[in-house]
Amino acid sequence: MLIRDLGEQALLQKLQRFCPPAVVGDDAALMAVATGQSVVVTTDILVDGVHFSVGLATPGVNTTSPADVGWRSAIANLSDLAAMGASPLGITVGLGLPGDLPVSWVEQLYEGMTDCLAQYNTPIVGGDICRSTVLTVAIAAFGQVFPEQAILRSQAQPGDAILVTGVHGASRAGLELLLNPGAGAGLSEGDRHRLIKAHQRPAARLDILPILQEVYRLQSPAPVSFRVAGMDSSDGLADAVLQICRASGVGARLEKAKIPMPTAFEGWLSPERALDWALYGGEDFELVLCLPLDFAEAMKERLGNAAAIVGSIVVGTEVWLSQSDGQPDVALNLNQGFQHF
Amino acid sequence: MLIRDLGEQALLQKLQRFCPPAVVGDDAALMAVATGQSVVVTTDILVDGVHFSVGLATPGVNTTSPADVGWRSAIANLSDLAAMGASPLGITVGLGLPGDLPVSWVEQLYEGMTDCLAQYNTPIVGGDICRSTVLTVAIAAFGQVFPEQAILRSQAQPGDAILVTGVHGASRAGLELLLNPGAGAGLSEGDRHRLIKAHQRPAARLDILPILQEVYRLQSPAPVSFRVAGMDSSDGLADAVLQICRASGVGARLEKAKIPMPTAFEGWLSPERALDWALYGGEDFELVLCLPLDFAEAMKERLGNAAAIVGSIVVGTEVWLSQSDGQPDVALNLNQGFQHF
Repeated sequence: MLIRDLGEQALLQKLQRFCPPAVVGDDAALMAVATGQSVVVTTDILVDGVHFSVGLATPGVNTTSPADVGWRSAIANLSDLAAMGASPLGITVGLGLPGDLPVSWVEQLYEGMTDCLAQYNTPIVGGDICRSTVLTVAIAAFGQVFPEQAILRSQAQPGDAILVTGVHGASRAGLELLLNPGAGAGLSEGDRHRLIKAHQRPAARLDILPILQEVYRLQSPAPVSFRVAGMDSSDGLADAVLQICRASGVGARLEKAKIPMPTAFEGWLSPERALDWALYGGEDFELVLCLPLDFAEAMKERLGNAAAIVGSIVVGTEVWLSQSDGQPDVALNLNQGFQHF
Repeated sequence: MLIRDLGEQALLQKLQRFCPPAVVGDDAALMAVATGQSVVVTTDILVDGVHFSVGLATPGVNTTSPADVGWRSAIANLSDLAAMGASPLGITVGLGLPGDLPVSWVEQLYEGMTDCLAQYNTPIVGGDICRSTVLTVAIAAFGQVFPEQAILRSQAQPGDAILVTGVHGASRAGLELLLNPGAGAGLSEGDRHRLIKAHQRPAARLDILPILQEVYRLQSPAPVSFRVAGMDSSDGLADAVLQICRASGVGARLEKAKIPMPTAFEGWLSPERALDWALYGGEDFELVLCLPLDFAEAMKERLGNAAAIVGSIVVGTEVWLSQSDGQPDVALNLNQGFQHF
């Protein structure tokens, strides 16, 4: 059945079953906010042919099924909240829908979205649908944070350690495996599966926030104010560090050897390719945090291999990559991938 | 200059001047919420060719200039907040933009939006842009309300009076004057201007909320709980009453003679046409409130001609229109305009 055969009201009813009954059916949704917390809001607009391809969503050749589009669009917004230090309250979903789109596509989109949101106890609290010639998904996400615990890009200071969660380059590698079935012939089934999963079903690092708050609470007998600069690595690790430095008016030095990558890269990718994907691949949705070394080390102790200190914030405006193998340092920038150095 | 010539980063910089400097430049925006208040959120997606027409936006023949599109899309969302009893905190704007759209179109859209928002001290707190083959505007709006003062559709009770603000049918009349230059030849310049303005530059009735709260506060020496059901009339007065009745499990009786319409309708429109536009025209963005008669009368006393009691909530499920001129009552429904009775 196609959207045009079903009609707007019937489609709305179908989609309402993905929302908590208490919050739908009014002009707007009501969400309680904890005393003293501020609201954080972020928005994304995703368009067919740019962020995903409806036309490619056929078994065997697609990189992104409707459910994956839903999952990834929810994660991108939850990750923005995590990058602000905020816990999620809910999301709204606006859809622009072509008449010839199968209704099942939209239902699968919502299934992927709610499967993802359920991991983070986050409801869809509202939405709007409208016919359009191009499939469009507009999401706004809301969270809450004590304003003094907000993670802002502009708060990095020289001397801060740069802590990253997880590994980088996995999503880009998963995309490669999907686009190019001949790629990674030597990979184990487990590695192949994990990399593809990293691309199709990424996670938002909301789990890091309570640990970060606890580390600040426990670390110091005397009161110390929370100061963490950060971003998610949705546009790549290099982009995150460069954006934080620009917003904070500082520079940074990264150590190539310390950037965590999937172990599967060894024996598959050249060191140059691996570094390129780790720095510029994007969509890993990890957190890049700048904070005093003591706290970074305490985080590292808590997280073990799930985090790494990859460098430090320095005076200046440039971001340098130190190559331990005796090669000269290189300056990173937003306009070039590693291959263009 | 066209969007494709300017590029995404330069366009974002142009648009950031419409936002308060303190809230842009991070992954998400931070908004303080007053203690004890809940957050209200609503979203709309507007698409070229459905809600407005870029192609018609040439002087002389257009009904909606880019600035008007911006104004009206902001008002639609602020009106949803007013209909929940909430005061606005901010909006986010997601744009899908064709490459061949003039940059000036987007700037005028933002000018109209911020001109409108400035009337309500409401900032644009975030956004996202993306290329698309069809111009799309996705807005999410946030407000705050004490949850016990929220206006919900489901709270109407038999015996409640139905209070409407302003007049109904003005926006539809303004559209007629724009679409059909020969229409309303006998209207005064002032009336013509007011009706067109009602269509192009509507207001959101956020001004009603403090009056409503004060009426509840002053009316009763003993504490009485705030209970107001309501909606805005963005989809027409009949739709608002029908939706409230459906959500509350009640019926309603409206009195035709009491429905406030623009005085300019007399001598221009037949009574049937005037009633059709008032009931089904839509986009007047007035409030339709159901509350105990005492409070409705107190509101009417405070607002004078700017409000009217047009009927009452009754036991049942149907919405009846009483015709004082001896004609039989008619049942209203969502599927037919007045002309189809």
